[in-house]
Amino acid sequence: MSNLLGSKYRVQIFGQSHSPMIGCVIEGIPAGIVPDMSAISAFMARRAPGQSATATARREADAPQIVSGLNERGETCGAPLCALIANADQRSRDYDALRDVPRPGHADYTAWVKYAGHNDIRGGGQFSGRLTAPLCFAGALALQLLAERGIRVRARVHSIAGIRDAGVDFAHPPMNAISDGPLPTLDPEAARRMTEAILAAKAAGDSVGGVVECFATGLPAGLGEPMFDGMENRVARAIFGIPAVRGVEFGLGFAAADLTGSRHNDAYRVQDGRIVTDTNRHGGALGGITSGMPLVVRAAFKPTPSIALEQRSVSLGNRENAPLTVQGRHDPCVVPRAVPCVEAAVACAVYDLILEG
Amino acid sequence: MSNLLGSKYRVQIFGQSHSPMIGCVIEGIPAGIVPDMSAISAFMARRAPGQSATATARREADAPQIVSGLNERGETCGAPLCALIANADQRSRDYDALRDVPRPGHADYTAWVKYAGHNDIRGGGQFSGRLTAPLCFAGALALQLLAERGIRVRARVHSIAGIRDAGVDFAHPPMNAISDGPLPTLDPEAARRMTEAILAAKAAGDSVGGVVECFATGLPAGLGEPMFDGMENRVARAIFGIPAVRGVEFGLGFAAADLTGSRHNDAYRVQDGRIVTDTNRHGGALGGITSGMPLVVRAAFKPTPSIALEQRSVSLGNRENAPLTVQGRHDPCVVPRAVPCVEAAVACAVYDLILEG
Amino acid sequence: MSNLLGSKYRVQIFGQSHSPMIGCVIEGIPAGIVPDMSAISAFMARRAPGQSATATARREADAPQIVSGLNERGETCGAPLCALIANADQRSRDYDALRDVPRPGHADYTAWVKYAGHNDIRGGGQFSGRLTAPLCFAGALALQLLAERGIRVRARVHSIAGIRDAGVDFAHPPMNAISDGPLPTLDPEAARRMTEAILAAKAAGDSVGGVVECFATGLPAGLGEPMFDGMENRVARAIFGIPAVRGVEFGLGFAAADLTGSRHNDAYRVQDGRIVTDTNRHGGALGGITSGMPLVVRAAFKPTPSIALEQRSVSLGNRENAPLTVQGRHDPCVVPRAVPCVEAAVACAVYDLILEG
Amino acid sequence: MSNLLGSKYRVQIFGQSHSPMIGCVIEGIPAGIVPDMSAISAFMARRAPGQSATATARREADAPQIVSGLNERGETCGAPLCALIANADQRSRDYDALRDVPRPGHADYTAWVKYAGHNDIRGGGQFSGRLTAPLCFAGALALQLLAERGIRVRARVHSIAGIRDAGVDFAHPPMNAISDGPLPTLDPEAARRMTEAILAAKAAGDSVGGVVECFATGLPAGLGEPMFDGMENRVARAIFGIPAVRGVEFGLGFAAADLTGSRHNDAYRVQDGRIVTDTNRHGGALGGITSGMPLVVRAAFKPTPSIALEQRSVSLGNRENAPLTVQGRHDPCVVPRAVPCVEAAVACAVYDLILEG
Repeated sequence: MSNLLGSKYRVQIFGQSHSPMIGCVIEGIPAGIVPDMSAISAFMARRAPGQSATATARREADAPQIVSGLNERGETCGAPLCALIANADQRSRDYDALRDVPRPGHADYTAWVKYAGHNDIRGGGQFSGRLTAPLCFAGALALQLLAERGIRVRARVHSIAGIRDAGVDFAHPPMNAISDGPLPTLDPEAARRMTEAILAAKAAGDSVGGVVECFATGLPAGLGEPMFDGMENRVARAIFGIPAVRGVEFGLGFAAADLTGSRHNDAYRVQDGRIVTDTNRHGGALGGITSGMPLVVRAAFKPTPSIALEQRSVSLGNRENAPLTVQGRHDPCVVPRAVPCVEAAVACAVYDLILEG
Repeated sequence: MSNLLGSKYRVQIFGQSHSPMIGCVIEGIPAGIVPDMSAISAFMARRAPGQSATATARREADAPQIVSGLNERGETCGAPLCALIANADQRSRDYDALRDVPRPGHADYTAWVKYAGHNDIRGGGQFSGRLTAPLCFAGALALQLLAERGIRVRARVHSIAGIRDAGVDFAHPPMNAISDGPLPTLDPEAARRMTEAILAAKAAGDSVGGVVECFATGLPAGLGEPMFDGMENRVARAIFGIPAVRGVEFGLGFAAADLTGSRHNDAYRVQDGRIVTDTNRHGGALGGITSGMPLVVRAAFKPTPSIALEQRSVSLGNRENAPLTVQGRHDPCVVPRAVPCVEAAVACAVYDLILEG
Repeated sequence: MSNLLGSKYRVQIFGQSHSPMIGCVIEGIPAGIVPDMSAISAFMARRAPGQSATATARREADAPQIVSGLNERGETCGAPLCALIANADQRSRDYDALRDVPRPGHADYTAWVKYAGHNDIRGGGQFSGRLTAPLCFAGALALQLLAERGIRVRARVHSIAGIRDAGVDFAHPPMNAISDGPLPTLDPEAARRMTEAILAAKAAGDSVGGVVECFATGLPAGLGEPMFDGMENRVARAIFGIPAVRGVEFGLGFAAADLTGSRHNDAYRVQDGRIVTDTNRHGGALGGITSGMPLVVRAAFKPTPSIALEQRSVSLGNRENAPLTVQGRHDPCVVPRAVPCVEAAVACAVYDLILEG
Repeated sequence: MSNLLGSKYRVQIFGQSHSPMIGCVIEGIPAGIVPDMSAISAFMARRAPGQSATATARREADAPQIVSGLNERGETCGAPLCALIANADQRSRDYDALRDVPRPGHADYTAWVKYAGHNDIRGGGQFSGRLTAPLCFAGALALQLLAERGIRVRARVHSIAGIRDAGVDFAHPPMNAISDGPLPTLDPEAARRMTEAILAAKAAGDSVGGVVECFATGLPAGLGEPMFDGMENRVARAIFGIPAVRGVEFGLGFAAADLTGSRHNDAYRVQDGRIVTDTNRHGGALGGITSGMPLVVRAAFKPTPSIALEQRSVSLGNRENAPLTVQGRHDPCVVPRAVPCVEAAVACAVYDLILEG
């Protein structure tokens, strides 16, 4: 059911954009871990709103408070860990008009149908990107646990508004070359042009989309299950939990469909006693099971549906056409803030698989 | 765990390419249904091997036998339904060499790691495309149950080897215009060129990939859950269960990432009292919940990894590089036979959501 | 995994006896419900500590705060509902000694093994009866939802320290004749004698156990599934989640084992067009499926393991025998406060089955 | 959903009493195991019908056929293992009358309601004790895997028709002193009297019930989870999957409710560096987690509801009272054949917990 991710590292997310709190309950954390709160906060700050000109003006400290799951020494004790995040800067009045006139491209209408009009319309309710804050908490903790095993997860902006970052060698992802800051890329010039495109869209009352690419290195071979619980199934399920994702692909992804087998297969080779592939078009998993090569996954994000331009919509109450001009504060592009969200989703899925053994 | 799909229409698949039998156990079928065995057989025949020049020469009747779940009148009785399919035309000797030298692009190596060398190497074992036969059984039964509710699911070859079929209006998928036969497209000329490309690859000892596009019409609005159990999460999980899938996208998918919000949002409109969108770039789900518009999903299939050309691989026993020439019978392109598999995966996922309510 | 109950009315419980907060996240509540907070508080007060001479002296207001899941009108909105309860009256120093010397009959030792010494020993940590407070919250909400369908759940003290309450006709449970107050029975004299036995045990530094019997009326026939997800499996799973439960039985339970079929079978009869049984030795479920007769279930609670008398135990650090005198505040008998807990467990399990349909 | 047991050693059971086949699909078996088919067959023979005067006259060879999950060397290969058992000796005509007049104490009526009259009435359909044959297959395989870890599971008839077997020391269950043969007890005289009681009931056209007690030795401490996934929750869920079970208790069970804490608590002691308890009234689990002491669990079985004596029932079609005389072959007491079923349920649950770690 809806907000539960994972089987052994199991994350239950709750909250709405304007509920008093949002948060998560995590089961399956090994006992004896001291959560690195400064690392977690730093990770969550990458997702937090109000930090750059390309993001929404809503400001949230997003300081998670752990209210269960730790013993008196601050170590995980085997009990479910609950982390709470307060919703502070709510401007619910911005949303009154949306109760009757749903925003195109949003879940306003589908939630209205599903919940018979009782859905929480304020700020998008449970469909808000704000729900990725607890996902990032869970992901940051997973990253800490993965790091202990030599596993790293890092994502970058692959493209925004059609502007692409530099290409990479999937067999050797440039984990350290990805820039920090609000728009992580390899090529600073690409980041600059992407920022321009975002600001231009914002100025036009419009929005843009993009693609996030994520790498995980240090994975052992042999993780994952055949058919429906493979690495791809699980990572895709997690990533599609982030709002605005329209597609997920691994390795070469859709580009693989245009190749021949002889050009797509990654030849095996023995290197220092280990079996590796020189290329990594398969993206780190074969038959749903990790190969020991880096995991490579991309997620396509649609342009933010909340735009300032007037749009055509309907009045749900009157069942008639009605124009709509969306109020409120919105990201003209969700992609920069989606980068840590994708890392979090991948980290949760990968750590879950590791615990499954 | 691995071979279990769905929560209310729950499909447990079992078998390997060369085990005595393959099959599935399905829980959640409403009681009182008479499975339409001729429709099921016709559906499964679309996937069955040995039927055209573009497919493997292995021949299997693939006649499913239902051994539980029916009462004495042949109606479903509420008990789990088990369907068995015999594996008849096995040529296991073709695979002896692969135990030591894994095929690039296949799960031979990853399964060898995961199962410590005990994996069934014959015909790809449980990683074989043959496991989609019971998926197609479950899908065909789901299609029968969906049809009773006015829901149709239909897929086509979107592209093979870079050759694309005609474009479609996602708001009005041409369900009846997709051709029958081994290579279902809208444009017969595209099908002809795709066939040529497959045969050319086959003649060259090579293989090609492609994209399958699937539509579901007649869906009510309001199906699916937020975050991790939305329509997209579930359909993607099912489709990634089909071997060789490298990406899954909905609506415009990755192309949405290059658009602006004003060009991507689908405006709402009242039509005969119903709320619809003129365009369907969102592909039928918003926030994980169906909108009442057709579901549109595409899956990218990599080129068949089993090719006749010599490839570089390794000897697992000797831990040294070793050349490999794959023997056995293989599809030069899995895409044509994948069309019903995608329909089956979508049908299972959609019917599961319907039962969940 | 551990603290998750149910599939459609799904309750995730978190917290430890002395963590800052305890609580639960509930998914699956229908949208549009206004939780009856006064009824919920009244229900939880029946379980709350510090209210009578027979209970622990720890005092907790146990006022639940709902921090997610409601829309701006206070209705459930389809999002997971999170309820928090603060832990106020903690005296953690009482537990310092227990870190090395586990209490017999408690989970101190088993948790120490499982969590490699990182378990939260304060107040029993996550094994504390305090975790039944969020279960009671979830149960009280389920009771509200069940009441709308004419379903009532009511439990009584069946026996304490071998003193039994009056017998009942399982076909017509005396739902309204069970007394309110700290020790709910049918026979006030039995309650008086039970209270005496509890106080005598308390005075002796000892404790006593007992049996809770729970009835659910108004159930439709046809709920539940064969084999592993029947009414009995689910209710038993929920009730065994309450600390100190050592057995669960339905209808005549273990007494049925001594009867003949002719004396145990409940004959069917048509009454006003409905099919009923005059007797209800089966306790409301046959083959895991409800019969429409009242559900009857009993749970055996062991005597509170925390007693004031000196006991023999071991030093975990020194691996040698060590005497133990337990400090802290403990119920001399958990049975009175377990009555609402059993009602809550049954209500959650039954409502879950109703949502499953 | 209904017929699925376990999370890591996951058993999906299918079939009805008179379907062509019954069987199970097991996921989670470690790769590289050679199933000991003679041990499995011997175990299943203990449950098989037609073997003694106290059992039904139906004869079934119950020879399981493994049709998937093994590699060419007969080792488990990581794929789901499917085992089939043919239903041979079916006499479905015995059941025609039951379609309209449900047997008291059986699931005939509740299944009729649930499945709207489409339930398989032949031989009790999916509610038949025959479904325990695949459970015994899964249990026998689990026993083989448990034996490799030094864990044994053994049950006995604790009582039949009120006649009790000898008492045991729960801290040292007499695993080897339990007799083989159709009625496993410690005391041969008790077995003789039980047999007499069964035959007397049979002669009278009646039936009797009883209690099975099961022990598991060699368990490590630390298995199981708090609250809802503890050893007790899981074992109870599995055992309630066996038809006719009305109660499950651990350790002293319901008798614990009458004791004081000082008489119920098991004192810890260091013995050869291990922490043990001299007594084992807790039955091997505290807080849902194993203590390292033997698991002790009892299950109460009601008397077989199918008796030859005329009973009062109803005509479902006419909605009027109707007498019923049950035809067909039935066990006058299911308890002897239930002994291996309880062992199987316990073995599956315990091995599942071991795989969960």
